[in-house]
Amino acid sequence: MFEAKLANANLLKKIVDAVKDLVTDAPFDCTESAVSLQAMDSSHVALVSLNLASTLFETYRCDRTINLGMSFTNMAKALKCANNEDTCMIRYDEDDNVVFAFEDTKRGKTQEVTVRMMDIDSEHLGIPEQEHSAVITMPSSDFQKTCRDLAMFSDTVTITATKAGVGFTGKGETGSSVVNFAPIGSADDENSVLLKVSDPVCVNFSIKYMNHFTKATNLSNKVKLSLTNELPIVVEYPIDEDGTSYLRFFLAPKIQEDEDAMNE
Amino acid sequence: MFEAKLANANLLKKIVDAVKDLVTDAPFDCTESAVSLQAMDSSHVALVSLNLASTLFETYRCDRTINLGMSFTNMAKALKCANNEDTCMIRYDEDDNVVFAFEDTKRGKTQEVTVRMMDIDSEHLGIPEQEHSAVITMPSSDFQKTCRDLAMFSDTVTITATKAGVGFTGKGETGSSVVNFAPIGSADDENSVLLKVSDPVCVNFSIKYMNHFTKATNLSNKVKLSLTNELPIVVEYPIDEDGTSYLRFFLAPKIQEDEDAMNE
Amino acid sequence: MFEAKLANANLLKKIVDAVKDLVTDAPFDCTESAVSLQAMDSSHVALVSLNLASTLFETYRCDRTINLGMSFTNMAKALKCANNEDTCMIRYDEDDNVVFAFEDTKRGKTQEVTVRMMDIDSEHLGIPEQEHSAVITMPSSDFQKTCRDLAMFSDTVTITATKAGVGFTGKGETGSSVVNFAPIGSADDENSVLLKVSDPVCVNFSIKYMNHFTKATNLSNKVKLSLTNELPIVVEYPIDEDGTSYLRFFLAPKIQEDEDAMNE
Repeated sequence: MFEAKLANANLLKKIVDAVKDLVTDAPFDCTESAVSLQAMDSSHVALVSLNLASTLFETYRCDRTINLGMSFTNMAKALKCANNEDTCMIRYDEDDNVVFAFEDTKRGKTQEVTVRMMDIDSEHLGIPEQEHSAVITMPSSDFQKTCRDLAMFSDTVTITATKAGVGFTGKGETGSSVVNFAPIGSADDENSVLLKVSDPVCVNFSIKYMNHFTKATNLSNKVKLSLTNELPIVVEYPIDEDGTSYLRFFLAPKIQEDEDAMNE
Repeated sequence: MFEAKLANANLLKKIVDAVKDLVTDAPFDCTESAVSLQAMDSSHVALVSLNLASTLFETYRCDRTINLGMSFTNMAKALKCANNEDTCMIRYDEDDNVVFAFEDTKRGKTQEVTVRMMDIDSEHLGIPEQEHSAVITMPSSDFQKTCRDLAMFSDTVTITATKAGVGFTGKGETGSSVVNFAPIGSADDENSVLLKVSDPVCVNFSIKYMNHFTKATNLSNKVKLSLTNELPIVVEYPIDEDGTSYLRFFLAPKIQEDEDAMNE
Repeated sequence: MFEAKLANANLLKKIVDAVKDLVTDAPFDCTESAVSLQAMDSSHVALVSLNLASTLFETYRCDRTINLGMSFTNMAKALKCANNEDTCMIRYDEDDNVVFAFEDTKRGKTQEVTVRMMDIDSEHLGIPEQEHSAVITMPSSDFQKTCRDLAMFSDTVTITATKAGVGFTGKGETGSSVVNFAPIGSADDENSVLLKVSDPVCVNFSIKYMNHFTKATNLSNKVKLSLTNELPIVVEYPIDEDGTSYLRFFLAPKIQEDEDAMNE
């Protein structure tokens, strides 16, 4: 049996909304210590990695390691039924269904939505933890707006990071846009931009995917970008303060564009 | 001559908006005591019954019984011209037009919209007043949300009512949803759920139509559901406090689904 | 070199949004004293005339008269990048690009968007200044709502003005609408309607174009309508208080409809 209760259904709603346009379905791995998920997007370009530590839940019980294959579309339907203040009990009882029970504790109203599970091959992708040349922590809303702005003129964003700051550039035939952020503030500041750069980086990515990732903006005030030349970027939205719960997106650089940019 | 003035054009706007997707046009019966209307929806499945008692109007004059055939689309256009605080004078002067005059009393601005009438056969359907096995009065917004939630998984809602409570169930291939309301509060409470059940009921209805009816949610904080096994449901939105003005929807049960549900 | 700074990027955003559905591209004439623009809409029915006096800008430098051909679509994209409180520096440096630099002075953040210029034939149309029979100054939001309301029943608006007031009429097959405004208030009043009528006028115009013009409603609380029988209407949104900066639309009357109206 698996049974876990979130104090607020809204958290799960935000996660599902952030991912559902990128990934249609995925297996949730439930263990004693966490609910986690890894999935490639349908065109096998981006990777989503979610970890929800058991400490994130009000109550958490997982008798044995199980694997719940879920359609994000159906999960989104179920979570749409939750009011913003509802608690959310997730329950799996060794049959083909996962039950989401929403409770409005003020009004004593309960609503149960049952979602049929799917058969999904679970292959844990084993992403290596890695040191990156540049790690940028910035307001998630600034990152979202930057990607949205650049997408108006270009389908590629060039991210450059040095100790002096991080720059986002998009160039197209009708125009181009450059947004620069200098390091500012400290970790506690809401608007701080923090940089840890061991080596300068300059990498190109598809803006379309970046705009998919920024659907997670509501999940967290901050976003953490980890960059190394010629390696995938990690776009991380932290979910709790100690870093054990998170939603991460991985995206490989656009190699060819990168060369063009260097020739310029 | 017919001439009646509403203190607030918004009331009529809400009524027309609630009905116009279900019924395209209808004859308004104007008598000394009320404006009323009965109409089947275009697929002849649901019935709309509106009664606006003369007491609901600031001024009311109806010299002889008349019948004003109106297109709801055109009425909606006319009422869209009214500002929220405008009064609304409805006038018919023995020609082919109904005039809606909106007055912003604060600014002394008047706007007149003339809508051409239609020839519509008026057949009063003579709905029998009836005792029902179960009468549920609940917040109209809860009923709206419940129907909307269930529609995500199913096109049929099963309503069960006992003295202990009322339940709404929708079952589909990918999932199902159950919402239960226990009786709570008294008639004065905004959030009260009141039940009068002489016999338990279990009836199935088309959710699509329920979602049409709930477009009247703005009209009233409360909705009254009257149910008897194998008989049409009455979904009533009261417009005034003494119950003489109302918007009612009638819908026959889905018989076949009902049998399925009983076999389960 | 041309370089001019607006205290608020929002002003330019509103202008571009008001015009971009009517005119796809246009040459901005930059002189020592003003930035101005004249352009016909794509169907050569309406004329747009914009004048931004140098006094409207915080800083203004124009070394020689130049002509910047711009796509409104691309300008709109650039201006979408500006936050509401950003200042906007417009810069042209003798190459093929115009740079819009937005600065959030509170956060010290700068964003530069470069828009490629277009080759556009610049033909100054030389609109004669003219005395009009009737000049109406009224709240721009009232004019917008009136045009929108009338468009529901008709594609022609008949504007009649006498010393007693101004009337807007739209007649169609299914209904008609009349909105009258009597003169009220003085020039300082927000809701005033002011009339200067030397000769009564009665002219017909295309509502579709009027609804295009009213996209400028956000630019100004007031709109000024200048009317003479059989001559184009001037719909002016003043941008500054001394009348040197403005957005004007010119539209020829619908002659045929005019005759019909007179025969009625």
